[in-house]
Amino acid sequence: MQHLAPQSAFAGVAARARVASTELALATRAAKDAALEAMAAALLADTSAILAANAADVETARSSGTPDHLIDRLRLDEARIAAMAQGLLDVVGLPDPVGEVLRGSTLANGLQLRQVRVPFGVVGIIYEARPNVTADASGICLKSGNAVLLRGSSSALRSNTAIVATLRRAAAESGLPEDAVQLVPGEGHESVKELMRARGLVDVLIPRGGAGLIASVVEESTVPVIETGVGNCHVYVDSAADLDMAERIVLNAKTHRTSVCNSAESLLVHQDVAAEFVPRVVRALQEAGVLVHGDQAFLREPGVVRATDEDWGTEYLALEISAAVVPSLDAAITHIREHSSSHSDAIVTDSQSHAQRFVAAVDSAAVLVNASTRFTDGGEFGFGAEIGISTQKLHARGPKGLPEMTSTKYVVTGAGHIR
Amino acid sequence: MQHLAPQSAFAGVAARARVASTELALATRAAKDAALEAMAAALLADTSAILAANAADVETARSSGTPDHLIDRLRLDEARIAAMAQGLLDVVGLPDPVGEVLRGSTLANGLQLRQVRVPFGVVGIIYEARPNVTADASGICLKSGNAVLLRGSSSALRSNTAIVATLRRAAAESGLPEDAVQLVPGEGHESVKELMRARGLVDVLIPRGGAGLIASVVEESTVPVIETGVGNCHVYVDSAADLDMAERIVLNAKTHRTSVCNSAESLLVHQDVAAEFVPRVVRALQEAGVLVHGDQAFLREPGVVRATDEDWGTEYLALEISAAVVPSLDAAITHIREHSSSHSDAIVTDSQSHAQRFVAAVDSAAVLVNASTRFTDGGEFGFGAEIGISTQKLHARGPKGLPEMTSTKYVVTGAGHIR
Repeated sequence: MQHLAPQSAFAGVAARARVASTELALATRAAKDAALEAMAAALLADTSAILAANAADVETARSSGTPDHLIDRLRLDEARIAAMAQGLLDVVGLPDPVGEVLRGSTLANGLQLRQVRVPFGVVGIIYEARPNVTADASGICLKSGNAVLLRGSSSALRSNTAIVATLRRAAAESGLPEDAVQLVPGEGHESVKELMRARGLVDVLIPRGGAGLIASVVEESTVPVIETGVGNCHVYVDSAADLDMAERIVLNAKTHRTSVCNSAESLLVHQDVAAEFVPRVVRALQEAGVLVHGDQAFLREPGVVRATDEDWGTEYLALEISAAVVPSLDAAITHIREHSSSHSDAIVTDSQSHAQRFVAAVDSAAVLVNASTRFTDGGEFGFGAEIGISTQKLHARGPKGLPEMTSTKYVVTGAGHIR
Repeated sequence: MQHLAPQSAFAGVAARARVASTELALATRAAKDAALEAMAAALLADTSAILAANAADVETARSSGTPDHLIDRLRLDEARIAAMAQGLLDVVGLPDPVGEVLRGSTLANGLQLRQVRVPFGVVGIIYEARPNVTADASGICLKSGNAVLLRGSSSALRSNTAIVATLRRAAAESGLPEDAVQLVPGEGHESVKELMRARGLVDVLIPRGGAGLIASVVEESTVPVIETGVGNCHVYVDSAADLDMAERIVLNAKTHRTSVCNSAESLLVHQDVAAEFVPRVVRALQEAGVLVHGDQAFLREPGVVRATDEDWGTEYLALEISAAVVPSLDAAITHIREHSSSHSDAIVTDSQSHAQRFVAAVDSAAVLVNASTRFTDGGEFGFGAEIGISTQKLHARGPKGLPEMTSTKYVVTGAGHIR
């Protein structure tokens, strides 16, 4: 354990989080669920105060020339606050991961061994404009027994401050420590840096936001990080694909929602079906408003623009897609291994052996067979709540639900056992 | 994915490891076990060549004035090489973690969801003098489907080079890629630094060694790290302890083997049993050659020296122990939470409620009831092989066996599913 003298405001906040975390670790599910319900009710009761704080943030953002789509992310209304409250109530319905026994056995010498889920302790969340993350992350951390240190963007500071004040009051009124939820004090990069260097004070750091934010946290943090990565997701249409199914999946994966990490950004088509499939999929994508960045084979279709080397690695998050014809299944796998961000990659095929090979050889958090990449999602997977989708291999990969917000502890019970 | 142009020797080695890792990920258990058997046989067959290389390392170390206990760590003999070979054969007997299905369900919409264990890919190991780690780590990585990049100490370079040459030849002869096992080229801190900054090329880094090595890797690495931590382990003798049992456990935990991370370094005694227990445990420890660094209560016993503030946080790894009397169970818990390295902490008590409270409130990788801290060990836990004991909370906590050397992948199978 490292210790900082509580001289800085941050050290004081971190020390209070540690104290709160020891209480939270021992809290029953009933106590935590009651607090979540109180927090949901308090958000609704405090709607007008939260909206007033948010209006001030929006006004500042507008007058400093923030683009409309960022203002839309920042803006709260009654429906969005109600959704935040409902999000907390959804977490009430989920099982408590703490205390789950993952492994258990009696050893040859009679020692009883159990591996039990325990909270991390103190979790730091660094996130960008959406103020709803403040409530969502607080709910997931509280249910998993963790104290949370929230560092939102300064553009949402008044909104986040109001939401946190409401959540803290509700937690305290229901008998849990108010320091279960705290904002990291201070503004600017220095205060983020304190959070990132707080090894021993903060157990895990989760950045939620764009590629730049995540890269800087990964680079600078000495606290262990769970990355929530970018999604350069592929759909590969195999030689043995049902082409109607392939068209539906490509369109859904690309156009169902473009701004999310599990939308498709790149299309690969096996050369044996290219003559039939390329013209129809290009037409269908263009009718849906999608700009196709194609290789030589795709460029024969009208309206397709030439794909540059960068396109294969680009997460457009927009109505654009890169597209190429590949000579073989293995060429598709090699292309994906080289360019994918290892989030979600799909194959459309009716061949059992091709599906099996693709699933085994593509090293991504989710590999989908005959299904849209859009299904890689905690809600769709039935996890109930999600705190991002991890593209790293350590600890949690794919959608992170409540169990992914825990560590484990071995409990060894003997009767005077010595070696 | 990040890419380095293969300009440096390290980049070339890392690229070859990545290629090998894709083959290893698809290798069957039978193929991996055959390679491990071939590697074990080759170590025995090459004994004289390995001993000659080791003799050169030992000679250099001796002439540069290396202390005897470090030379002993470095030195190999026929028995140690036979033990390395046996270690590889032990791994043959363990189940293959790759492919294990951790979660599986059919979602409401008919999508089939499976969470499957997959290898990390490329694992880097940074370790100090013992050359046996070269073979042990290679065996564990190969069985778990990972390519390994080994960075041992320069004092063991000739030994490690000879061992790696043997392992690579045996892997290749059995049909697996020889680049499953590679030494990181170059000497000095620069080459370690390349390994620590190889995010995207190396998936996980495991430092094995002293506190200084581990701290520097944690500080400098952008590759995710699994820490193998120091052990400042406690034994707390409760008011409800069987004092005969307590004495046996304290002696075993302290003196069974002093140089290991799971040996006890600190003793706490409840004040209600202090009058009876302190004199007898001090006498027993002193008879075993242990120097007791005591608080005021312990100082009444002859031969006890005064504990300084540093003593409570010190991992002696020697016949020394810090010792204090505490007024309550909760005072013991607070002391442990403050000073423990969160490796292994034990309570001796016959009280069910005291044991329960201790287990819940002490946040360590292993919490032991009426058992010696010496049991926190992959072999003792029945894991068969171990690549260190993690004291971090992310990914793996406690002894790390083969399953801890894997990540997971979600496989989602549909029939044309779209959202």
